[in-house]
Amino acid sequence: MALHFEHAEFEARQDATAAAMAERGIDAMLLFAQESMYWLTGYDTFGFCFFQCLVFTRDKQLVLLTRAPDLRQARHTSIIEDIRLWVDRGEASPVGQLKDLLDNLDLLGAKLGIEYDTHGLTARNGRDLDEALRTFADLVDASMLVPQLRAVKSPAEIVHVREAARLADLAFEAGMAEIRPGADEGRILAAMQGAVFEGGGEYPANDFIIGSGVDALLCRSKSGRRQLSDRDQITLEFAGTYRRYHAALMRTVVIGDTTQRHRELYAAAYEALSAVEAVMRPGHTFSDVFEAHAKVMDAHHMLPHRLNACGYSLGARFAPSWMDWPMFYRGNRAEVRPNMVLFAHMILADSATGTAMTLGRTYLTTEDAPTPLSRLPLDLPIVG
Amino acid sequence: MALHFEHAEFEARQDATAAAMAERGIDAMLLFAQESMYWLTGYDTFGFCFFQCLVFTRDKQLVLLTRAPDLRQARHTSIIEDIRLWVDRGEASPVGQLKDLLDNLDLLGAKLGIEYDTHGLTARNGRDLDEALRTFADLVDASMLVPQLRAVKSPAEIVHVREAARLADLAFEAGMAEIRPGADEGRILAAMQGAVFEGGGEYPANDFIIGSGVDALLCRSKSGRRQLSDRDQITLEFAGTYRRYHAALMRTVVIGDTTQRHRELYAAAYEALSAVEAVMRPGHTFSDVFEAHAKVMDAHHMLPHRLNACGYSLGARFAPSWMDWPMFYRGNRAEVRPNMVLFAHMILADSATGTAMTLGRTYLTTEDAPTPLSRLPLDLPIVG
Repeated sequence: MALHFEHAEFEARQDATAAAMAERGIDAMLLFAQESMYWLTGYDTFGFCFFQCLVFTRDKQLVLLTRAPDLRQARHTSIIEDIRLWVDRGEASPVGQLKDLLDNLDLLGAKLGIEYDTHGLTARNGRDLDEALRTFADLVDASMLVPQLRAVKSPAEIVHVREAARLADLAFEAGMAEIRPGADEGRILAAMQGAVFEGGGEYPANDFIIGSGVDALLCRSKSGRRQLSDRDQITLEFAGTYRRYHAALMRTVVIGDTTQRHRELYAAAYEALSAVEAVMRPGHTFSDVFEAHAKVMDAHHMLPHRLNACGYSLGARFAPSWMDWPMFYRGNRAEVRPNMVLFAHMILADSATGTAMTLGRTYLTTEDAPTPLSRLPLDLPIVG
Repeated sequence: MALHFEHAEFEARQDATAAAMAERGIDAMLLFAQESMYWLTGYDTFGFCFFQCLVFTRDKQLVLLTRAPDLRQARHTSIIEDIRLWVDRGEASPVGQLKDLLDNLDLLGAKLGIEYDTHGLTARNGRDLDEALRTFADLVDASMLVPQLRAVKSPAEIVHVREAARLADLAFEAGMAEIRPGADEGRILAAMQGAVFEGGGEYPANDFIIGSGVDALLCRSKSGRRQLSDRDQITLEFAGTYRRYHAALMRTVVIGDTTQRHRELYAAAYEALSAVEAVMRPGHTFSDVFEAHAKVMDAHHMLPHRLNACGYSLGARFAPSWMDWPMFYRGNRAEVRPNMVLFAHMILADSATGTAMTLGRTYLTTEDAPTPLSRLPLDLPIVG
């Protein structure tokens, strides 16, 4: 049994979910996001690559419909007791079995809240679902019901988040120990991810991002590795993970002498991050945080080099991405509240000179100023 | 630029896709699977966590609609020249921008083939898409058009697959060097994944699966690690990866003396894998392969302990899973053809005695008998 929270913690989360459902008149949730299932029950799997659904009723019944390989997985990792299986049958869809299950739960004509906005429900399965349930019940998109509850962390979650942050720092230090002229990106990556695994963490919800030379300007991972040259730059965006909770960091390391352009970009990034910290607190929205970043960036003439977002929430996330809701972009009216875990990244990529600079870390919000969860300095890292 | 195939290779794939489209009367494909985009153009990203679409017309125009952070990613990794961006705007959906793009391509009233059956298109985005395009064009589900072409590998792909297989063998050897009483699962995992990274590989499309003690019976990954005891078992399901191509292996390692039950399960697994090899060749279906496995398993009284599937195709896959189409299960009439890359796994989990046994490796199909891509022996691995 690998249950990472007390039963009382899961009960509190279920109570909160049931209350939010009652507020919206929802009789049962059809949960498809692995994040929702993990948060509500501990169920930990990548079995959402196939069709699966966790039904949660307003009177707190939990029924999981999944594929056989996940029966034992649900038993070993979650508090779910009622697990039903569907079987691969050529072209047959498991949605029919879901409908029967809902019928058995006496949900004919009920109002069902559905998580459509998740990688746990493909468009194909979503279409089958709508087709099968359209005349059976009243279907409403309730994709944000659980994520809104998940966005504010409990004390027990924050313990895991702090451990994830500790592992992120260790990962950076392990990477720095390998970074030098001639070093292979693959070896740097092995050292960084290895530090997380050896510390008891797991795979991140997306690849660590590692790119050097002209690829230091990228902010996604890709296949193919290179070796560092004598004067180089390497961008690292990575996360410590613990019990699926993420704490991310981002740095661009300069190898050899820094250029004037590196220093200019770094000055803008550092100042923008300070401006972000000043508004990352209750009384401000996620849009305010983005605007604080943009204002500094644009004063430094960085508008052509910056992105249209400067970070996001973190939590217990599954593939394909650790980016959680809400995000820092223009017009996002979500409010900053205490005990959120927020990753702010300042990303600059100057194509004309081929120069990259990034600076990012994860914060725990409070009633007042946010607490950085990393003990690493914000200095521009330079090797050699 | 990180392009892993010659331009002529991409042109051949595009020709094959256009021909398959013509056969079905499809004027343009709306591709949402990252696998399709990578195969057709080299585009390598996890940016499919947000809405993105690659439009491919029958006259071989390629237009990518994506989010800003992937503009440079597409330029550095793919042959796509026409890249359009959508911007986060509160509640606004990017589907409207896709419709405008299709209109510009003169596709009003056309027959559009859509990839609905992929994690690259969530149910939410799929509903928006259907709503926006219903009166604009004739929409057909063409989810299997590209996967059917991808299932048979080219010589250039097989070079990468072989390299992935070499890294898988190295990963197992690195893991075995760490497996002993008292060893920490996290350290074993770090050694295995580290071997792939150091060899030039990348993250697998799903976590390596590692579980010991009672969790050796699981066939999914989970968070939380333990240490091996003096008499133990550890199940490892993992893949070497190279240029996003996967070659998987599966073993259960016994620590200390093997039990009688381990030996019984191993005998069944070994015999079943041999039976599978005998039919994994042209003239048989994927269902035949499953039945060959099931017949041996059931003769060994393993019906309660086996699964309802015994493997699947492999290729260049992205999160959340490396399992590719077609799969080995009852009733799957897909035919085995030469130059497929197929992973056969014999998985047994006996709950009553808490015993696990697995045996699996990846094959390249030929006109005749399949070629195992691993040089590892199929012996039951025992430590100490």
